[in-house]
Amino acid sequence: MRNLLGGKGANLAEMTNLNIPVPQGFTITTEACVKYYDDGKKISENIIEEINNALAELERVTNKKFGSIENPLLVSVRSGARVSMPGMMDTILNLGLNDNTVETLAKLTNNDRFAYDSYRRFIQMFSDVVMGIEKRTFEDILDKVKEAKGCRYDTDLSSDDLKEIVVKFKEVYKKELGKDFPQDPKEQLLEAVTAVFRSWDNPRAIVYRRINDIPGDWGTAVNVQSMVFGNMGDTSGTGVAFTRDPATGENKIFGEYLINAQGEDVVAGIRTPQPITRLKEDLPECYDEFMKIATSLENHYKDMQDMEFTIEQGKLYFLQTRNGKRTAQAALKIAVEMVNDGFITKEEALLKVEPKQLDSLLHPAFDQVELKKAKVIAKGLPASPGAACGKVYFTADKAKKQHEMGEKVILVRLETSPEDIEGMIASEGILTVRGGMTSHAAVVARGMGTCCVAGCGEIKVNEEAKTFEVAGITYKEGDYISLDGSTGNVYGEAIKTTAPEISGYFETFMKWADEVRVLKVRTNADTPRDAKQAVTFGAEGIGLCRTEHMFFEEDRIAAVREMIVSKTVEQRVKALNKILPMQKKDFIGIYEAMEGKPVNIRFLDPPLHEFLPNEDEDIKALAAEMDISFEDLKATVVSLHEFNPMMGHRGCRLSVSFPEIAVMQTTAVIEAAIEVSKNKNIEIVPEIMIPLVGEVKELKYVKDIVVKTADAIIAREGVNLKYKVGTMIEIPRAAITADEIAKEAEFFSFGTNDLTQMTFGFSRDDAAKFLVDYYDKKVYEFDPFVKLDQVGVGKLVKIAAELGRQTRPDIHLGICGEHGGDPSSVEFCHGVGLDYVSCSPYRVPLARLAAAQAQLKNPR
Amino acid sequence: MRNLLGGKGANLAEMTNLNIPVPQGFTITTEACVKYYDDGKKISENIIEEINNALAELERVTNKKFGSIENPLLVSVRSGARVSMPGMMDTILNLGLNDNTVETLAKLTNNDRFAYDSYRRFIQMFSDVVMGIEKRTFEDILDKVKEAKGCRYDTDLSSDDLKEIVVKFKEVYKKELGKDFPQDPKEQLLEAVTAVFRSWDNPRAIVYRRINDIPGDWGTAVNVQSMVFGNMGDTSGTGVAFTRDPATGENKIFGEYLINAQGEDVVAGIRTPQPITRLKEDLPECYDEFMKIATSLENHYKDMQDMEFTIEQGKLYFLQTRNGKRTAQAALKIAVEMVNDGFITKEEALLKVEPKQLDSLLHPAFDQVELKKAKVIAKGLPASPGAACGKVYFTADKAKKQHEMGEKVILVRLETSPEDIEGMIASEGILTVRGGMTSHAAVVARGMGTCCVAGCGEIKVNEEAKTFEVAGITYKEGDYISLDGSTGNVYGEAIKTTAPEISGYFETFMKWADEVRVLKVRTNADTPRDAKQAVTFGAEGIGLCRTEHMFFEEDRIAAVREMIVSKTVEQRVKALNKILPMQKKDFIGIYEAMEGKPVNIRFLDPPLHEFLPNEDEDIKALAAEMDISFEDLKATVVSLHEFNPMMGHRGCRLSVSFPEIAVMQTTAVIEAAIEVSKNKNIEIVPEIMIPLVGEVKELKYVKDIVVKTADAIIAREGVNLKYKVGTMIEIPRAAITADEIAKEAEFFSFGTNDLTQMTFGFSRDDAAKFLVDYYDKKVYEFDPFVKLDQVGVGKLVKIAAELGRQTRPDIHLGICGEHGGDPSSVEFCHGVGLDYVSCSPYRVPLARLAAAQAQLKNPR
Repeated sequence: MRNLLGGKGANLAEMTNLNIPVPQGFTITTEACVKYYDDGKKISENIIEEINNALAELERVTNKKFGSIENPLLVSVRSGARVSMPGMMDTILNLGLNDNTVETLAKLTNNDRFAYDSYRRFIQMFSDVVMGIEKRTFEDILDKVKEAKGCRYDTDLSSDDLKEIVVKFKEVYKKELGKDFPQDPKEQLLEAVTAVFRSWDNPRAIVYRRINDIPGDWGTAVNVQSMVFGNMGDTSGTGVAFTRDPATGENKIFGEYLINAQGEDVVAGIRTPQPITRLKEDLPECYDEFMKIATSLENHYKDMQDMEFTIEQGKLYFLQTRNGKRTAQAALKIAVEMVNDGFITKEEALLKVEPKQLDSLLHPAFDQVELKKAKVIAKGLPASPGAACGKVYFTADKAKKQHEMGEKVILVRLETSPEDIEGMIASEGILTVRGGMTSHAAVVARGMGTCCVAGCGEIKVNEEAKTFEVAGITYKEGDYISLDGSTGNVYGEAIKTTAPEISGYFETFMKWADEVRVLKVRTNADTPRDAKQAVTFGAEGIGLCRTEHMFFEEDRIAAVREMIVSKTVEQRVKALNKILPMQKKDFIGIYEAMEGKPVNIRFLDPPLHEFLPNEDEDIKALAAEMDISFEDLKATVVSLHEFNPMMGHRGCRLSVSFPEIAVMQTTAVIEAAIEVSKNKNIEIVPEIMIPLVGEVKELKYVKDIVVKTADAIIAREGVNLKYKVGTMIEIPRAAITADEIAKEAEFFSFGTNDLTQMTFGFSRDDAAKFLVDYYDKKVYEFDPFVKLDQVGVGKLVKIAAELGRQTRPDIHLGICGEHGGDPSSVEFCHGVGLDYVSCSPYRVPLARLAAAQAQLKNPR
Repeated sequence: MRNLLGGKGANLAEMTNLNIPVPQGFTITTEACVKYYDDGKKISENIIEEINNALAELERVTNKKFGSIENPLLVSVRSGARVSMPGMMDTILNLGLNDNTVETLAKLTNNDRFAYDSYRRFIQMFSDVVMGIEKRTFEDILDKVKEAKGCRYDTDLSSDDLKEIVVKFKEVYKKELGKDFPQDPKEQLLEAVTAVFRSWDNPRAIVYRRINDIPGDWGTAVNVQSMVFGNMGDTSGTGVAFTRDPATGENKIFGEYLINAQGEDVVAGIRTPQPITRLKEDLPECYDEFMKIATSLENHYKDMQDMEFTIEQGKLYFLQTRNGKRTAQAALKIAVEMVNDGFITKEEALLKVEPKQLDSLLHPAFDQVELKKAKVIAKGLPASPGAACGKVYFTADKAKKQHEMGEKVILVRLETSPEDIEGMIASEGILTVRGGMTSHAAVVARGMGTCCVAGCGEIKVNEEAKTFEVAGITYKEGDYISLDGSTGNVYGEAIKTTAPEISGYFETFMKWADEVRVLKVRTNADTPRDAKQAVTFGAEGIGLCRTEHMFFEEDRIAAVREMIVSKTVEQRVKALNKILPMQKKDFIGIYEAMEGKPVNIRFLDPPLHEFLPNEDEDIKALAAEMDISFEDLKATVVSLHEFNPMMGHRGCRLSVSFPEIAVMQTTAVIEAAIEVSKNKNIEIVPEIMIPLVGEVKELKYVKDIVVKTADAIIAREGVNLKYKVGTMIEIPRAAITADEIAKEAEFFSFGTNDLTQMTFGFSRDDAAKFLVDYYDKKVYEFDPFVKLDQVGVGKLVKIAAELGRQTRPDIHLGICGEHGGDPSSVEFCHGVGLDYVSCSPYRVPLARLAAAQAQLKNPR
């Protein structure tokens, strides 16, 4: 029922079935939320009626009544989407309190202080969450009263203080909104439900959904539960706990709680909470019951649980349970151990780990030599493992901006809040002064696989001055620091990082993935170093070796430029002959690194003007260097200028104009293959990929040159070398005429970067600016350059795959756009029957797991 | 049998059946030519064998033998494609002559001079056409001998002179090719056939095919016929004639001939030929027979015939007949008169006129007032009607270049040759010094509908100095002249031209077209003037009214720029409010011009940076004008810079970012419609077109704004105005998700310009440079921006039309790319069931005829 009730609602229902103590309540479905949006952001009469009916039933079973001065019903109102989106949407507690019921509550509990503390919390939450009044306005009042009364903590305030605060809060409400704080609990409830629906579409939820592939039309459910109170004194409390350690995966309870506290106090990081084990000493019976239920929940859900609980005057309630977010290390350890314990199957284990998470395991670790010399300047909680090094910034905005400019950044905050999400995504690591292992920063960082050190109280942050100070030293914005998320160490300098390895649980787990998957995983690599790295990550070949990067290298760019300014074929051939030995050496290195695994080499792709300078000054300098006139070189630069370089003279169009380039590249590919085949005694079958084809005759023209050149070399050398010639499908016309193209192509590799650009008609560089508006207005939910657009681009991929197979049933099909490293796109590629995906080396493990999951979900 | 035998071969066979005297011969099929190319430009053994068999049969029926010194067989070898491509491919005459047979020929005809004249012609033709030796080398020898002997014409040369020339020609041959001139007639024949096959792919044939929509894979047939000789003395001759006047369509014989001449002498314009009517005096029996056959051929083919004939010593032979090329005026007169005479049906008549030809009728004529004041400086033959005014250039290359730079040019040449084709296409008019009404210049110009004055011997051209002189005045390159192709008058100045009208035969003919066609024809017009012009040409509505041109106008660009630099919505709305009344006035003018016919208005399309300057200097000036800082304006310009503007922030993307623009444009469209509806008492149903849509949500977002704005105005005004909202399909993603798009679109208009760019992945501006290489290498035969690429882009159009109708069976479908004015593209649009095409005003009649022809060929 998760789709209808949301994760939280479904689990609450399930816990009720398991006789676990949960507060009574009901769930307003995700369908109601979808209808709310369909109706132009209005709750229909129908739904209001259903809510009223459910409320009446809740009143009946709790024997309490909304607004009653005998036994008032108080409720919590919480969001709950199909999948957990922690902190992204809103919660309102203590709803039902008003000037009358607060008095009743005080009488019933014999606790004035508790009743008014609850009321002031409710007013603040309702005003902030439902009515959009600045939270800070209320916090300022609270701080002022605390100061005036000489209180350190909220808990030090007396009931009279709290009554004074309530009066002031209601004054703020009236001043801001021009009307009194609503006294009718039904009105409060409808407003709160609306607010939760609305919060489905707040900016941070939209961003979170985009990052986590959650469709915008799912909507959230709303859970209305009768309140239980963790703030009723020293036998009350509230906490969160995991059945296993979410950072390491260790199989022991892990959690925190606060005595005499409510709701978000624990995760908000305002008071530093106690470890869950302390509950054993404080309230041993509650602890035992809690442990028993926790174990049974893990057994029931067959997964590590993340639970929220409240103890009201010694009575334990579970407020929610869900499969807990965890670090990649923890996820693997838990998955492998559960299999080893016979608790779940390998297949179940494979489905329990998010492919994207593996990324974090592949982040570099600190160089051990440099680490030994580095000085620890502070120590916080090891909230999310990994090593990070970058420049310090103090706001999410700034971190994001500097990241976009290519800097590696560390975000330093007193504490993070959901508004910081984009800055957190942009950061290599996150350092917070306040908050524990379950603080916002820690939870979010673990989810993203980003290194995080939390609760590092030693450092003094001055947000105004954009500095932090520790042990008498001041660090400014832009200074380098390094974080170790596994130890909590903070270093006041840059520390070199090293490449990760695959071993232990990770290795075991990836072997299982390889046993299951049918989709091959190759890598995009242009150098022997990258190629080797990818092989250690499990790459089964190279799906895309771009040759242009080789052309840019310093020792050959001169010859490349000489080729470009050539006026005759002879001059051009002469220049190309200078590049040939270097290009051949490139391929030898790559073949050797791949040890016989397939290598797919794409011929020169970018427009030629990319190899020349643009500014007059640079042109002058280059002309002098090349010993040609400025005017000549300038004329070449001008003649190569393009209005839309993306749609210009590039790809195979270069070889149609200058077949000599294809001759040189073919020579290098084939001669290198012959040489390595002989020297290493391995069979090499180079794949030559002709890019940017839109028409079969264009492919044939270039292919004929390739084949003629290759066959002549093979004949001359008297060897028996096989090779393949194919094309990228990256132009819409190629996709829809793929039956024709397949006549000349032995393989297709879908270049989904360019195909996305052409299919959408926007260039990646230019679209970044206006896609922001598109996300805001919910036209697009995902960046189609990150996650393959299955509706449009995917349809073309499917059409092309089908047409290609019609003509050539054994045509080899792969994808080499960056989508090859995106899990949902990998699943799509599996679904349309591609033979392989190719992605950057660091994404290879992710793709291997995604391919295994795809096969498990949709066997082929 | 035209497809197999080519036009010439089929007609020769037909004439044989009709017992018309044609020289005996055989035809090598177009299939053989296709095979020649398939086999890598080699004639297969198979075909050689068939040629030999046919040759043996020819020898049998003529009782002559290749190489025989008793009765040698001599043949002509001519190309002949499915459709006539005059002068584009090669011809070889007198084949079979060698050092021995020339003597036999001399003896048999008792005419040494004739035999050696034939031999020297053969050597020259064979060397030039088959072996590629420069023609000029031979002409130089001829000129030198003529000079030495004091001869003016070739006919003045004696047989000894000609023998001397033959020796010298053979020396040139040996020197150039290192071997003797081939003496074996079979070897000569195979070489000649190969040369004709090869000439199918010469550059001018490729260009001609591209202009005339002739597929490159058709190939040419080769006609081998036994020779008849027009150069055997004063009872011999050769000529070309038309059954009606190809310039005016007048129903009387029209042609020219030369006594004692061979082959290309008539059309090459070297000697000025005699009118065909003179033949009545010279050879009355031949004339009568000729007239009888000409009439029977016209009756047989039911069309005006273009015939070549040779008279050999008083005996008449027809060498070929074909439907004659004619001016548009002539075509219409002939078609309408043939219907009026009950000779053909209206439907047949409609199929006899090339839609592209109508273009020439729509060329402007001279302004009569200016014309009266203008001075005629020379008079030539009125070779192709129309009025032209432009700057003088003396080479085809230069004419082409200046044309590309936006100049109107007149090409002035001594005589034109097939190499000049591209320059002729680029010219407004053509003026030649030599040649008659059937000269190359005249024939080609009529075919293209370009104004031409031929044989204007009064002017003295100095090609070196790039000047011409007439009556003591020298005209330089770049000077203006004007030509009247209907009178042959040349004016030494620029004369204003005026818009043409549709009347007379043209009007009758177009009415027939309208009776037949089902496809509607609209126009692309942005101004009331263009709209009115299009209506006089028969436009049934506006298919595309671009609003951006209105934004560029001087009185509003300031407000547009103010809008662009706006930092807030309020500022932007304020600026847009300044544009609103002007924009509204635009639409009022257009609605009034269209008098209730549908008007489709496309919302703002180009990227905003197009409205701002680029250079610092201009930015400074504008900043001062706008009273903002240079830095501010520069920052705006920089922020709007795009890497690929074609794929940037434009079209509906602007309205997603700035909905205020859509609000303003909707207001203008609707308020103007209400005003004109009231004032003129006509029902106006504006069509609002949202451009560059790629995703239905994007369309919906903008449409919602449009509908909300429009409905509010309609409600406010208390009127009952209908309007439609639809989209352009110009992004591949829109085409393949058209079922989704159709949910929100009441109409689709295919923007095939952008759709072609995105589907091929090349931008029109940038592709021009490399498409030349593509034509050369036969990858593409046509410019896909002129003729719709039916294989790729057309497939997307078809898919989108089908998907659109699936969702919305009554969806209105049109096309507004420039392809709407291309006949083959119009035929395609008819075929896929579009409701209308829209094209520029001057193309409307063409589209009406093309639509009628499409219905006749493929009724729907």
